[in-house]
Amino acid sequence: MPLWGSAFSKPTAELMKKFNDSMPFDRRWYAEDIRGSLAFARAIRRAGLINDAELKQIEDGLVQVRAEFETGTFDTLPVDEDIHTAVERRLTELAGDAGRKLHTGRSRNDQVATDAHLSMLREVATTRVLLFDLQRVIVEHAEQHLDVIVPGYTHMRRAQPVLWSHYLMSFFWMFQRDRERLDDLAKRTSMSPLGAGALAGNAFGIDPEQLASDLDFLRVYENSIDAVSDRDFVAEFLFDASLLAIHLSRLAEDLIVYSTEEYSWVRIDDAYSTGSSIMPQKKNPDSLELIRGKTGRVVGSLMSMLTILKGTPSSYDKDYQEDKEGMFDTVDTLHMTIPIMSAIIDTLSINPERMAATLDDSLLATDLADYLVRKGLPFRKAHEIVGLMVRDSLEHRRPLRAYSTTEMQTYSPRFTTDVHEVFDFKKSVEWRKSVGGTAPAAVKQQIERAKLCLVSAVG
Amino acid sequence: MPLWGSAFSKPTAELMKKFNDSMPFDRRWYAEDIRGSLAFARAIRRAGLINDAELKQIEDGLVQVRAEFETGTFDTLPVDEDIHTAVERRLTELAGDAGRKLHTGRSRNDQVATDAHLSMLREVATTRVLLFDLQRVIVEHAEQHLDVIVPGYTHMRRAQPVLWSHYLMSFFWMFQRDRERLDDLAKRTSMSPLGAGALAGNAFGIDPEQLASDLDFLRVYENSIDAVSDRDFVAEFLFDASLLAIHLSRLAEDLIVYSTEEYSWVRIDDAYSTGSSIMPQKKNPDSLELIRGKTGRVVGSLMSMLTILKGTPSSYDKDYQEDKEGMFDTVDTLHMTIPIMSAIIDTLSINPERMAATLDDSLLATDLADYLVRKGLPFRKAHEIVGLMVRDSLEHRRPLRAYSTTEMQTYSPRFTTDVHEVFDFKKSVEWRKSVGGTAPAAVKQQIERAKLCLVSAVG
Amino acid sequence: MPLWGSAFSKPTAELMKKFNDSMPFDRRWYAEDIRGSLAFARAIRRAGLINDAELKQIEDGLVQVRAEFETGTFDTLPVDEDIHTAVERRLTELAGDAGRKLHTGRSRNDQVATDAHLSMLREVATTRVLLFDLQRVIVEHAEQHLDVIVPGYTHMRRAQPVLWSHYLMSFFWMFQRDRERLDDLAKRTSMSPLGAGALAGNAFGIDPEQLASDLDFLRVYENSIDAVSDRDFVAEFLFDASLLAIHLSRLAEDLIVYSTEEYSWVRIDDAYSTGSSIMPQKKNPDSLELIRGKTGRVVGSLMSMLTILKGTPSSYDKDYQEDKEGMFDTVDTLHMTIPIMSAIIDTLSINPERMAATLDDSLLATDLADYLVRKGLPFRKAHEIVGLMVRDSLEHRRPLRAYSTTEMQTYSPRFTTDVHEVFDFKKSVEWRKSVGGTAPAAVKQQIERAKLCLVSAVG
Amino acid sequence: MPLWGSAFSKPTAELMKKFNDSMPFDRRWYAEDIRGSLAFARAIRRAGLINDAELKQIEDGLVQVRAEFETGTFDTLPVDEDIHTAVERRLTELAGDAGRKLHTGRSRNDQVATDAHLSMLREVATTRVLLFDLQRVIVEHAEQHLDVIVPGYTHMRRAQPVLWSHYLMSFFWMFQRDRERLDDLAKRTSMSPLGAGALAGNAFGIDPEQLASDLDFLRVYENSIDAVSDRDFVAEFLFDASLLAIHLSRLAEDLIVYSTEEYSWVRIDDAYSTGSSIMPQKKNPDSLELIRGKTGRVVGSLMSMLTILKGTPSSYDKDYQEDKEGMFDTVDTLHMTIPIMSAIIDTLSINPERMAATLDDSLLATDLADYLVRKGLPFRKAHEIVGLMVRDSLEHRRPLRAYSTTEMQTYSPRFTTDVHEVFDFKKSVEWRKSVGGTAPAAVKQQIERAKLCLVSAVG
Repeated sequence: MPLWGSAFSKPTAELMKKFNDSMPFDRRWYAEDIRGSLAFARAIRRAGLINDAELKQIEDGLVQVRAEFETGTFDTLPVDEDIHTAVERRLTELAGDAGRKLHTGRSRNDQVATDAHLSMLREVATTRVLLFDLQRVIVEHAEQHLDVIVPGYTHMRRAQPVLWSHYLMSFFWMFQRDRERLDDLAKRTSMSPLGAGALAGNAFGIDPEQLASDLDFLRVYENSIDAVSDRDFVAEFLFDASLLAIHLSRLAEDLIVYSTEEYSWVRIDDAYSTGSSIMPQKKNPDSLELIRGKTGRVVGSLMSMLTILKGTPSSYDKDYQEDKEGMFDTVDTLHMTIPIMSAIIDTLSINPERMAATLDDSLLATDLADYLVRKGLPFRKAHEIVGLMVRDSLEHRRPLRAYSTTEMQTYSPRFTTDVHEVFDFKKSVEWRKSVGGTAPAAVKQQIERAKLCLVSAVG
Repeated sequence: MPLWGSAFSKPTAELMKKFNDSMPFDRRWYAEDIRGSLAFARAIRRAGLINDAELKQIEDGLVQVRAEFETGTFDTLPVDEDIHTAVERRLTELAGDAGRKLHTGRSRNDQVATDAHLSMLREVATTRVLLFDLQRVIVEHAEQHLDVIVPGYTHMRRAQPVLWSHYLMSFFWMFQRDRERLDDLAKRTSMSPLGAGALAGNAFGIDPEQLASDLDFLRVYENSIDAVSDRDFVAEFLFDASLLAIHLSRLAEDLIVYSTEEYSWVRIDDAYSTGSSIMPQKKNPDSLELIRGKTGRVVGSLMSMLTILKGTPSSYDKDYQEDKEGMFDTVDTLHMTIPIMSAIIDTLSINPERMAATLDDSLLATDLADYLVRKGLPFRKAHEIVGLMVRDSLEHRRPLRAYSTTEMQTYSPRFTTDVHEVFDFKKSVEWRKSVGGTAPAAVKQQIERAKLCLVSAVG
Repeated sequence: MPLWGSAFSKPTAELMKKFNDSMPFDRRWYAEDIRGSLAFARAIRRAGLINDAELKQIEDGLVQVRAEFETGTFDTLPVDEDIHTAVERRLTELAGDAGRKLHTGRSRNDQVATDAHLSMLREVATTRVLLFDLQRVIVEHAEQHLDVIVPGYTHMRRAQPVLWSHYLMSFFWMFQRDRERLDDLAKRTSMSPLGAGALAGNAFGIDPEQLASDLDFLRVYENSIDAVSDRDFVAEFLFDASLLAIHLSRLAEDLIVYSTEEYSWVRIDDAYSTGSSIMPQKKNPDSLELIRGKTGRVVGSLMSMLTILKGTPSSYDKDYQEDKEGMFDTVDTLHMTIPIMSAIIDTLSINPERMAATLDDSLLATDLADYLVRKGLPFRKAHEIVGLMVRDSLEHRRPLRAYSTTEMQTYSPRFTTDVHEVFDFKKSVEWRKSVGGTAPAAVKQQIERAKLCLVSAVG
Repeated sequence: MPLWGSAFSKPTAELMKKFNDSMPFDRRWYAEDIRGSLAFARAIRRAGLINDAELKQIEDGLVQVRAEFETGTFDTLPVDEDIHTAVERRLTELAGDAGRKLHTGRSRNDQVATDAHLSMLREVATTRVLLFDLQRVIVEHAEQHLDVIVPGYTHMRRAQPVLWSHYLMSFFWMFQRDRERLDDLAKRTSMSPLGAGALAGNAFGIDPEQLASDLDFLRVYENSIDAVSDRDFVAEFLFDASLLAIHLSRLAEDLIVYSTEEYSWVRIDDAYSTGSSIMPQKKNPDSLELIRGKTGRVVGSLMSMLTILKGTPSSYDKDYQEDKEGMFDTVDTLHMTIPIMSAIIDTLSINPERMAATLDDSLLATDLADYLVRKGLPFRKAHEIVGLMVRDSLEHRRPLRAYSTTEMQTYSPRFTTDVHEVFDFKKSVEWRKSVGGTAPAAVKQQIERAKLCLVSAVG
């Protein structure tokens, strides 16, 4: 019989047992559940609900249960409907009546919420470390290729020359925001629900603030109903994970394009490519495609959680049992995709000749307009004049630098012979030296600022 | 080495192998994969690519591989990156060069698409049968309680009296639409991609139409690129499943409300309720809450799939490997939630006294206005007059039937003594006897029409 | 005072009026609302609730109201909280007590459901016609370029040669499925809710089946509760629209890639490109990017609708007022994006030289393996041998055709001089001549079948 | 001709113009656009690109353009494809060549990003103030009803007695978290993209840090590519809005249930209810239902934005134009729903008699078990014993307090006469006096802590 069953006149249906059973997935929380129970045991000792000997029995029992999980020797019984029930059942086998006292003043509602907070804090910490590694790899790659110029794109059309390092560093800052969001989440998640009981608080003077402190939480929930039913932090994690996954996906998308036969800017290492069952020549960027595809899965889990929360009345509802699988899946996805991306960047070969070959004069059209501005023309007029030149250049398939000064002067008398200094990709990037710009000096400064983020992240 | 590996200069990274490995979930398709391969073996025999002896070796080998899966004796090796590779690897161990010939003119692209179509058709068929059972249970319950009148609600406010059976039958038709949508999906899914190769068709004269016929598909894909990359049917299934889950969720929501202590109209059987770890009196409708919660999960899987599809260029991309887990999870969810709902309805106790106790005169306000209409007043004026009476009734907490005819005449001279015949819930429902209305005769007719749907569904 | 207000002791708050007001968006339904009311007026005449003179007054009044909407002279008053109220209010000004009788036996619940069904059927019909045009443009373009061979891609990597027409036709079939789904939706939407009243049916013998017939619906709802609360068809439309938008998005994505400077396969007409405020040379494919971006919006509206439906108890809830804006926005989006895509395809220039320039020998690796198969080697071995050749070819940057027969024989003795016939892209596509394959003959046949779909669509 | 048009050989198609036109919705940003331009004009003055007279002309011109928008006299021309173009076009009419110089070193890419950041900061600030008001109303209501006890629910089943104020305050903390999330968002949004140009930075030494400071931003973007393409803050806002909307929705759901005829705990003021077109007695909680329904819309906009972001390559793509309408709609939704909820709470009548009437002895089952714990029984055994008593009580429909001490002793000899002191709802809540518990003293303390949040929010 389940531990809650004495008021029931009928046993649970077999189908219902299977439907209700969360042990297959929440057993993953055994360490958190036992950690929470150890703290709770000390709390009820302080409240005088058990004596020292009973506390010892509970502690010894829980330590043994944990060892059984760690060594894979824990026997799950059909009556173990979830990790909480399973641990208490086994503890009671080991510690007898002391075990039966552990749940005094506690409900599965505050217990499961405690486990959820503890595990979230742990997963977030791991995610941060993985992100940190990825950012480090990006900085290293960027530093190594500071002299490589590529077309910068907007709308997937060549726009202006930029440093390859500048391009890659743009992702550093996206991941930095992801890390900041995770920090904010950790701050909000570090709030202890233990002591809230089923929803009304506990009737034994068990002190939530001492419990919070024992479990390294920064704060307690100010309201016991909120404490047992808050799953905002799960949704927030899934959102943070979605944006992070989207950043990974966009980088993956870029690398897939840049490694096509048509671009050939970069080569994905064979160790992260796979082949075709039928076409012998194929080297497919499966790693990057899976990163991109798995993003859908993370977004799906966010939508799942929001749909669940939206449809429930307040306080605890069983619907919340459905908060776990999407969260676990998302954690596992991130903990796989981030290191894969780090490894791909780390082993990425770039092809500077192909990159250089894609630099064409149209990328300098803005510089040509800027030239006219420096000669005194209002920018809007300069833009129009250069537009007409580009049109002619496209129609006659002549690069802009092939036009003589005299020809240019038919568009504007302000062109003089120094105009041909414009046709220099290196100078073009050097012009853009303000903070955040693509000039080598600015990018070096950017990399220094990025390194500071990595240093401070360690602390 | 993987079967596609000879062009690679480096082995796959260990992390990448794990990332790429779909065997843990797509092994579920072993029967479809083998069925497709058996048909394909006959096709390449017809095309003269193998001889009779080789066909025999392949057939015997595949039959044995299937037996190994069925008996749980199939040994998965690290090189088995997916079910298709695993089956071919094992077949080749058993059948030698004949096995190495099976993949002639076939690609994993059309192979996986074939498996996906076959398994979808099977899962849809199972879902239909489960829905059929649920509809049958609803009809049975509705037929048994044709004499029970309850308030019908709109906006969760008492609106007009309706038959309890009429209320419940409203769900029959939602599930009927779900079944119709699944029928449409099956029609569209019954299209064979086999023979499309990697994306361009096959170069050996293998006949897609004969293959389709052998595998009981209604049609072939008209375009090989479309054949290998179409996942519309997966998205359509997830949508159909989402609406179905929403219907289950709304029924669950209603039953949760109707079984509260405040309503007490129905009682969920103890076999489908669970208790509390702390509160001894609790009987929680966990079964219904889980049905409601799992709806979020199904919707999440739909969003996941749409996000995946949206972000890919056309033709086959590896992102599609992510189509499976959400689909499997949705299938498993439906195949659990539908029978649970059937069982809950089947064991539902209703409390006609409590239902009757919630019938109050305000439910008859429309009938009172209708009375004035029959006496010649335009409906809009009748509505206004009865509104004023209701306002007085609320302020003085007097039920409408307590007003004397004389009092009523102060509102309208058209009231005569026969007005008190309006205050009869049974007559109120009997008035609504048009098709689809709540009159017992109309509901009986509705149930007869529903039974026809059940009969025709068998065929 | 609102028409329902006599039971209320207080006027509606100003903020609430604004919050509740749906007239700014549902006025779009004026024609459907009046059409439904005209049919309903005849129904209550048949039921004896009004006489011929009153029917005439109502009909004349409604015709005038419609004219006022059509000519933009309808005056909306603050009391008009929605289109239904506005029409009845104005009708009553014109037709007096006859107008006040129109709502006899009808509720806004069945009225709004009727409007929703009628307008959905109209919008679906329009969408089908636009899709038909797009399919026609695709067929025309495909027929004009039957001799152009391009690399077919999987994983965005060159896979096998295919006809450009074959590639483009793959989208024809996606849109064909979209049209089939819309047909299924229309079938399910053609169901009349009128006569269901608030939720219980009507008490005046008004015949739903006659009403359905008058309004050209195929069927009636079998259950009045279901009739007023079913919004499945809105969700189904939003799903169908999502898949359709995804198909457009994938085509847009491909065309953006194929029109990059790096590919230069196609050129988007200047009339469908836009420029940059700063970079004079830019011609951005904004039309295609907007098509791609708007897909997110359509998927968002689907998510919105599913979230709304999931969270409501059964029967009519006011939450359903939120079904409209997402649906209207989706209709407007489709009715803009489909013709834009048709126009883009219609004006697309292709660059056969650039396409030919991207054909490289690695695309023929499968044909090379197929060659060995024809010489008697099992495919799996042939694949491995050619893989080794490709590896050598990549390492030494030599195209496969540059290898002499003798060199090839070091890989397999089965190579003879006829192997060099393999290196012919035209022959490669011609091999794939089964149904759905990329051989010119097969593609011609495919186009003929496509034309049949266009013919039958007219009917 | 559009301002970017000189390189184009053909005018934009009419359909394309309409498709591309964002003026109907982004005109809403006129104030931000002009504010950004004023700061930018000063920046290019500092960089020596214009002189003092030109700066004056630009400033005067922009001030006049703003005045024209504010007074509704701005004439939009067909050439005004967005707010940025429209302002520059009009400025140039007013200021001539000085106007044509304003865009020097600036791109619409950094310009639109600047507008987006400025407007987001403003909207977030407004949302915070509205939330503050709602929280204040909640605290006031909670303080006024500190003596009212109601059943606390879990799973929509009566669980334990709680203070009505405690229940309501649980929402205070959800909204507090919402405010904290908005604060974090504001911190991350306060980052200036101006000076980043199209994507590469600007070539004129325009100082991004000075611009940031002039526009009251805390920081600048460290990377110009990131600066023009970051829309994370829009997605984060939509997520924060989704959770906030979900909190409103759950409160709305509760109040809909608590105001049903079956509960009758609270009454929604007539000013926030509406009636039925057919049923004169109906007072529907439309305000709350719309709040609940609109949540779907907000979640849909989040899904829309994530889908858009997921599917784009990095750097600026036109898809981002689609970020606006969902954001605007969400802002408008929140700025309507929050004050409506404040007004509903502010005018809410509660019915303490009905609340008291729903308190039944089963709510004290936990207290009964706690009694046995205090008598020395392990909790798990106490829970089992009380469960058996509850079962008997349900079967015989006898409240627990009706059992005599002797009868109770048949369940456990530890029951003595003082057991009847347990049956006191007031004492039950008083037991739960730890931090966050439902005891009046604890709730008072909670309210004091809440008030601190309100005080600190002002600063």
